[in-house]
Amino acid sequence: MEYYIGIDVGGTSIKAGILNMEKKILAKDSISADAGQSGSRLVENMAKLAKSLPACIHMGMDEVRGIGVGIPGTVNSRTGKISFVNNLQLNGFPVKEELERLLSCPVTVCNDGDAAAYGESIAGAGRGFDHILMLTLGTGLGGGFISEGKIFSGADRLGGEFGHTGIVFQGEPCTCGRRGCLEAYVSATGLIRMTREAMQRYPESLMWDLAPDLALVDGQTVFDAAQRKDVPAMEVLDSYTDYLAYGIANYVCLFAPDAVILGGGISAQGERLTQIVSEKTESELHGQGRLPQIVCAELKNDAGIIGAAFLGHSYENLDKFSEKRLANKKDL
Amino acid sequence: MEYYIGIDVGGTSIKAGILNMEKKILAKDSISADAGQSGSRLVENMAKLAKSLPACIHMGMDEVRGIGVGIPGTVNSRTGKISFVNNLQLNGFPVKEELERLLSCPVTVCNDGDAAAYGESIAGAGRGFDHILMLTLGTGLGGGFISEGKIFSGADRLGGEFGHTGIVFQGEPCTCGRRGCLEAYVSATGLIRMTREAMQRYPESLMWDLAPDLALVDGQTVFDAAQRKDVPAMEVLDSYTDYLAYGIANYVCLFAPDAVILGGGISAQGERLTQIVSEKTESELHGQGRLPQIVCAELKNDAGIIGAAFLGHSYENLDKFSEKRLANKKDL
Repeated sequence: MEYYIGIDVGGTSIKAGILNMEKKILAKDSISADAGQSGSRLVENMAKLAKSLPACIHMGMDEVRGIGVGIPGTVNSRTGKISFVNNLQLNGFPVKEELERLLSCPVTVCNDGDAAAYGESIAGAGRGFDHILMLTLGTGLGGGFISEGKIFSGADRLGGEFGHTGIVFQGEPCTCGRRGCLEAYVSATGLIRMTREAMQRYPESLMWDLAPDLALVDGQTVFDAAQRKDVPAMEVLDSYTDYLAYGIANYVCLFAPDAVILGGGISAQGERLTQIVSEKTESELHGQGRLPQIVCAELKNDAGIIGAAFLGHSYENLDKFSEKRLANKKDL
Repeated sequence: MEYYIGIDVGGTSIKAGILNMEKKILAKDSISADAGQSGSRLVENMAKLAKSLPACIHMGMDEVRGIGVGIPGTVNSRTGKISFVNNLQLNGFPVKEELERLLSCPVTVCNDGDAAAYGESIAGAGRGFDHILMLTLGTGLGGGFISEGKIFSGADRLGGEFGHTGIVFQGEPCTCGRRGCLEAYVSATGLIRMTREAMQRYPESLMWDLAPDLALVDGQTVFDAAQRKDVPAMEVLDSYTDYLAYGIANYVCLFAPDAVILGGGISAQGERLTQIVSEKTESELHGQGRLPQIVCAELKNDAGIIGAAFLGHSYENLDKFSEKRLANKKDL
């Protein structure tokens, strides 16, 4: 039998799981990640966590065929070096090299959003679709485009920043420094900001009953109030879904996915969200481009582990192709 | 020797050229295209034009290795069928099949913007870069992303619509039906609209001397007035280059090109345009993403012919890869 290990690195914890070829998680575990830890300590802890997993299913490390790691930052997946990461001491650290040395197993490293999108595409809501775009509506806006099993990351894997394309020229400031980024409008953070702004405009809104203090507002507040027909809340959701459909339509024009998978906390709204966003995306496209199915993610917090575990399959093909292409180019 | 023929289909004329392996046009010719012509008549005329070219260089059709066609519309490059085209009677017409029958030679068909971008990438301003984004600032906004010799067109080649991603939510109406598309701001048409609006706001502007009637305004008007230090004209150009840099930054986030090539009539401004757009793109990126070189196109009207002629090389590799990937996917 062949087994695969996926590691999902977050700002506060590192989760890992061991999977069989059917992409089923057979055992998983997690440890805390400390922003102050050095890169080498962090990677040693990842290795320790990974090493502990085969024993849980009475297997040895020698039956693990591949290990993948998803990291919240910009990753050069070819070299496995981290070019930029917030919160963790991993900038410039050769994660792939170090892990391969510690674990004697091929390691692939990529952005955590790409790993989650890849996980949904092979084992979640993306099964049955050839080309999926995933948007993770969380604290930030993560995204990934997977086409025929291949993760899109732009040239030299330096692109694929789906959260930071601007949709509102001179709009809201974004954490990245730009203004009007899609993330500033459709992340949970963006929704909470719009909810608070509406509450300040409408002191009579039901939203104040649900969150008596602005600090208590979360991504759920506006959905609960809108379900109880609170007009200011319905207005916020109307704007929110307008922005989301506008952003999705942009990505349809560029990537033509056959499905858009919404993940992150906000996707817990299920069809309350997808139905209206589907309708608005259709009307936003004006009959042009391919109308994608819009669905919610299925794997929740496991998407990153599952996607990371099988990353080798996606990138291996990509690299082989790229080398072949460069060889062909010389002929031309 | 091997020769290649490129055909560039426009709304009013069909241009074609025969090229050697060094991508040099050895002979070229054009005929008029009539919007009222049937698809089969149009394709017969393309074939006649192509057939006439080898004789101009004392060669026979049997020495032509490949023929490519760029068409202003949505093209399924795999089947060579046209799914949507404005102005010409080619909707649903099997251009590839018909031309191959008439010319007994492999034919590749693609969108004309992609053909021009590919031409610049192999024989123009894109030589020496591995990943280029081309934006053609013409009546509309054409675009193409070429990475390691491969034309990006999104899933099933239904994407790659670089002109119709929205950058101004609820902004200017676009010809596509959406609002706030990049095309509505950075095409020559968008620049002319902004020029006219400024002239109406500033009756004292020098622009009125250059274009005494709003109907006389063209893409050059505002540049000429700005060079003579007309403040309203400088303001228009400031906005125009802000929008252009904002759009380029979006594509840097997604595609990470190492060069952005500006084509179309407006690119005649040369460094007057690229220098300021480079500075603004750098500041728009806030140190994130890869800062691309921004340069003007070199091949002018020949880009489409040159790119079309060598299309087979780009798509052949893509198809082989795609088939291989699908085979691999079944294994996973």
